[in-house]
Amino acid sequence: MSEREQTLSEFRHFREKMNEAILNAGHLGIKRFFTLDARTYEAGALDAKTKELLGLVASMVLRCDDCITYHVVRCREEGVTDDEFYDACSVALVFGGSIVIPHLRRAVARLQEVPAT
Amino acid sequence: MSEREQTLSEFRHFREKMNEAILNAGHLGIKRFFTLDARTYEAGALDAKTKELLGLVASMVLRCDDCITYHVVRCREEGVTDDEFYDACSVALVFGGSIVIPHLRRAVARLQEVPAT
Amino acid sequence: MSEREQTLSEFRHFREKMNEAILNAGHLGIKRFFTLDARTYEAGALDAKTKELLGLVASMVLRCDDCITYHVVRCREEGVTDDEFYDACSVALVFGGSIVIPHLRRAVARLQEVPAT
Amino acid sequence: MSEREQTLSEFRHFREKMNEAILNAGHLGIKRFFTLDARTYEAGALDAKTKELLGLVASMVLRCDDCITYHVVRCREEGVTDDEFYDACSVALVFGGSIVIPHLRRAVARLQEVPAT
Amino acid sequence: MSEREQTLSEFRHFREKMNEAILNAGHLGIKRFFTLDARTYEAGALDAKTKELLGLVASMVLRCDDCITYHVVRCREEGVTDDEFYDACSVALVFGGSIVIPHLRRAVARLQEVPAT
Amino acid sequence: MSEREQTLSEFRHFREKMNEAILNAGHLGIKRFFTLDARTYEAGALDAKTKELLGLVASMVLRCDDCITYHVVRCREEGVTDDEFYDACSVALVFGGSIVIPHLRRAVARLQEVPAT
Repeated sequence: MSEREQTLSEFRHFREKMNEAILNAGHLGIKRFFTLDARTYEAGALDAKTKELLGLVASMVLRCDDCITYHVVRCREEGVTDDEFYDACSVALVFGGSIVIPHLRRAVARLQEVPAT
Repeated sequence: MSEREQTLSEFRHFREKMNEAILNAGHLGIKRFFTLDARTYEAGALDAKTKELLGLVASMVLRCDDCITYHVVRCREEGVTDDEFYDACSVALVFGGSIVIPHLRRAVARLQEVPAT
Repeated sequence: MSEREQTLSEFRHFREKMNEAILNAGHLGIKRFFTLDARTYEAGALDAKTKELLGLVASMVLRCDDCITYHVVRCREEGVTDDEFYDACSVALVFGGSIVIPHLRRAVARLQEVPAT
Repeated sequence: MSEREQTLSEFRHFREKMNEAILNAGHLGIKRFFTLDARTYEAGALDAKTKELLGLVASMVLRCDDCITYHVVRCREEGVTDDEFYDACSVALVFGGSIVIPHLRRAVARLQEVPAT
Repeated sequence: MSEREQTLSEFRHFREKMNEAILNAGHLGIKRFFTLDARTYEAGALDAKTKELLGLVASMVLRCDDCITYHVVRCREEGVTDDEFYDACSVALVFGGSIVIPHLRRAVARLQEVPAT
Repeated sequence: MSEREQTLSEFRHFREKMNEAILNAGHLGIKRFFTLDARTYEAGALDAKTKELLGLVASMVLRCDDCITYHVVRCREEGVTDDEFYDACSVALVFGGSIVIPHLRRAVARLQEVPAT
């Protein structure tokens, strides 16, 4: 990433610290949403790898860098290869247009931080 | 679909008529985009079924009913089952929030028009 | 509404029919989201009227006509007056820009269908 | 346009009727926004034709069909040719991606309703 | 906030410096928009606190961190409690989906910087 | 720019490095999109200056700071004056609403880095 971007470690630290603050606030609806969100990517009729690719493309077309970071890491954990990653990105790019390009750059930078398993 | 929505046949008719008008206008950049768009969903590192599911989820989180109609039909052609469809929709719904619900309703109405093969 | 728009009765009929089809499909994550969504607008630290105004403004800046219809009706049920409605719309309009105007037109048309209680 | 779309005449009738209702409601902030919006497209450092092309491309990438209809008509009044229209659309298409295509179809249908002067 | 985010003081400094540059440029339409924007949140049919909550939720579903920072500070000035803040956030979260979560994290970090009065 | 923003030089360095990584990955669809994107802003029925103004306004209403930086620099190269820049921004601001303001601030900061030719 560029010098001004968060490192993966900074991203994780801030994410965990704030998730804890949010859940400790005790709002039942927000807690339920966080639980539901976590379960959404568990294998169902579709396997976990496919669902992470869906999460990655949704992150890119909606242009959320934090979501991209999260799903790039999870895609790697589910065994997504570089070629599969770029093929998914091509759908996001053509679907979402050139405005996706800056996010694609940051997605590739994250991919380089997380080697294929 | 509701009485005021386009039927699948009306959708296809308008789509083909206008695509023809657009391509006949002779703008090279627009033509190239249409060609690129068509090729994006061909099997590559990911198979065609997975790429159609990516297209479906992108359509739903970006809330484009015409895109949803197109990808529901293509998902069916690639053998997507009802359970796989709903599992993909659950990702779109949790990712995009309740604002996706009206589009989910129309997606399901389209799904009912296009039986599983 | 214009002749080509759904009437409020058509909107409700399609909404109920499709919600039933979605819930009958039996996807646990989708069901939980629908339950969570319904509970979100119940009185908590904020009263139900304020939460419906939040839903109305979110619908307008995200430009979802079905969501607008739903929250206009619910705002009326919670006693929102015409003046309060327009004051909330002014926030949505300045926040979201002129692209909100077509949705404001349809919101006002719905408001006229649902008299103040 | 397709049979289910508003005709240009229906669009104008609904637009005028609802704008009148909105302005009659007497909310000062909303009135000021409408005045400001109208003046935005008057010639300044940029001429009116260029500003209408800016409005057209903004309408397309933000995917607002009513805004597209309005700016297609205004572009024609400012002397935009078919070739200029398609060249502007190519920017919107590559910028906004394939999700712009359904709106491009409806933009071209509107263009065919409003002949070059 | 994370080490790479702007502090509240940096945010304010940059905001004031650039607002001054923008207004000094002398474009009448831009000046009028800034005036209109400031007046939008003044008490009218709705009180200032409710309007700031509307601004906060609009900021979150449109995912604008600078707007969130501004409205979190203003919410505090209008006496919004932690519980009211989280209740408003739950509407934004369910409405806008998991893509709102990264912005919710930053909103809560800002809230911690601005104690309740 | 604020101390935490990328400098223009950092932006260019990261952009070039990552574009190279993306193109070296060898995905044909992605390569074609990058080629198409570059050609989109070449003079056609509209001149290059007008097309860069279209790109600038699209960047602002879609709220992409990297795209804004790119098009501000290109606008300057095509001879766009300060007054023309602000006139284009006024369209983006009224079209996209107050949520455009934070991006307008950063656009003006970039403009100050790139003097008129």
